[in-house]
Amino acid sequence: MRLRKRPWITEAIKQYAAIIPEPQREGDWQKLFDREAPLHVELGTGRGGFISELATRNPEINYIGIEANQDVLYYAAQKVAERQIANIRLLLLNVENITDIFTPGEVSRLYINFCDPWPKKRHTKRRLTNSRFLERYRSILIKGGELFFKTDNQALFEFSLTEFAGANLKLRNVTFDLHNDDFGENVITEYEAKFSAKGMKIFRCEVIFE
Amino acid sequence: MRLRKRPWITEAIKQYAAIIPEPQREGDWQKLFDREAPLHVELGTGRGGFISELATRNPEINYIGIEANQDVLYYAAQKVAERQIANIRLLLLNVENITDIFTPGEVSRLYINFCDPWPKKRHTKRRLTNSRFLERYRSILIKGGELFFKTDNQALFEFSLTEFAGANLKLRNVTFDLHNDDFGENVITEYEAKFSAKGMKIFRCEVIFE
Repeated sequence: MRLRKRPWITEAIKQYAAIIPEPQREGDWQKLFDREAPLHVELGTGRGGFISELATRNPEINYIGIEANQDVLYYAAQKVAERQIANIRLLLLNVENITDIFTPGEVSRLYINFCDPWPKKRHTKRRLTNSRFLERYRSILIKGGELFFKTDNQALFEFSLTEFAGANLKLRNVTFDLHNDDFGENVITEYEAKFSAKGMKIFRCEVIFE
Repeated sequence: MRLRKRPWITEAIKQYAAIIPEPQREGDWQKLFDREAPLHVELGTGRGGFISELATRNPEINYIGIEANQDVLYYAAQKVAERQIANIRLLLLNVENITDIFTPGEVSRLYINFCDPWPKKRHTKRRLTNSRFLERYRSILIKGGELFFKTDNQALFEFSLTEFAGANLKLRNVTFDLHNDDFGENVITEYEAKFSAKGMKIFRCEVIFE
């Protein structure tokens, strides 16, 4: 999903200022949506295919998609604008910094879909399911808040389960083969469609922060 | 691994009384070995191939193999006797009843290898990784005690991970493909050899009771 650098995007993305606000509104996110509603956040939202579909299906939820790559986020914003999806905002932000912008208990659910597996051992800490990140997630989630996690990377999933257990998190609906399991309401990401079509298995679980 | 019923075994098994003591010695297991040593217990020891190999490799550990099927246990005892393995005792017992024979903190580690997956939903409670069993294991294990779990059944492994998390247990060395992972000291069971040879993946993890 990496694009070649496109310098014109720095200008073009400004037209989507209503969809991509400045990420400096700690504790103030509901105002952006002009309504109080549960806040669900996707970490690494990419081109926004997943969050757009999700937001359309669940108009009663406020969605925020976080993405560190401006070029990718531009296309996500384009999608949200074209489809006129009112309950999505997008943030140009590194996941490292989420605790700077959300207050404790502000988020109900997190989504992580096919994040970078960082396979090298020395990069363990960069994996978005590392205990270091889990503590950040805990600090912004409500009690009973959830993390919905999908990956096609077996080693990352094995690692993640260990990290979840280490952080005293509960599991629900663990599957090692999402597309052959009886799981009703899966929203498929662009990446997932591509890899699943190649016969690769998709691992998924729901993690509960009690 | 099920055998046809062999009535002569009821008599023949008596010759192994030194290896198969009566399972009624709560808190008293170390005496059987004439020494104090960490006690490791295999639940469903079958024909005893796994525990025999393990006990030979680790002479400093006392091993107990538990098996509910007398006919199978006979062959396990035969193996232990022939190889003159001093640090194994075998018990004819249903795992349901382990809390009757062990006292709290008596066991350091449990092994469950390829237990019956009980795939039907109404049989969930019979699975040896069900929360009901996990509480029994906790009550006989030392603090920091371990459960080493292997299976070729994906649905059982998915289920088990959820149960482990639900019971606040920690995980270590989770693998979804034991034989292709870099895991040094795996002792292979008869069942495992057969199924792995067919290309089936073996799931394994270590569970810590803190």
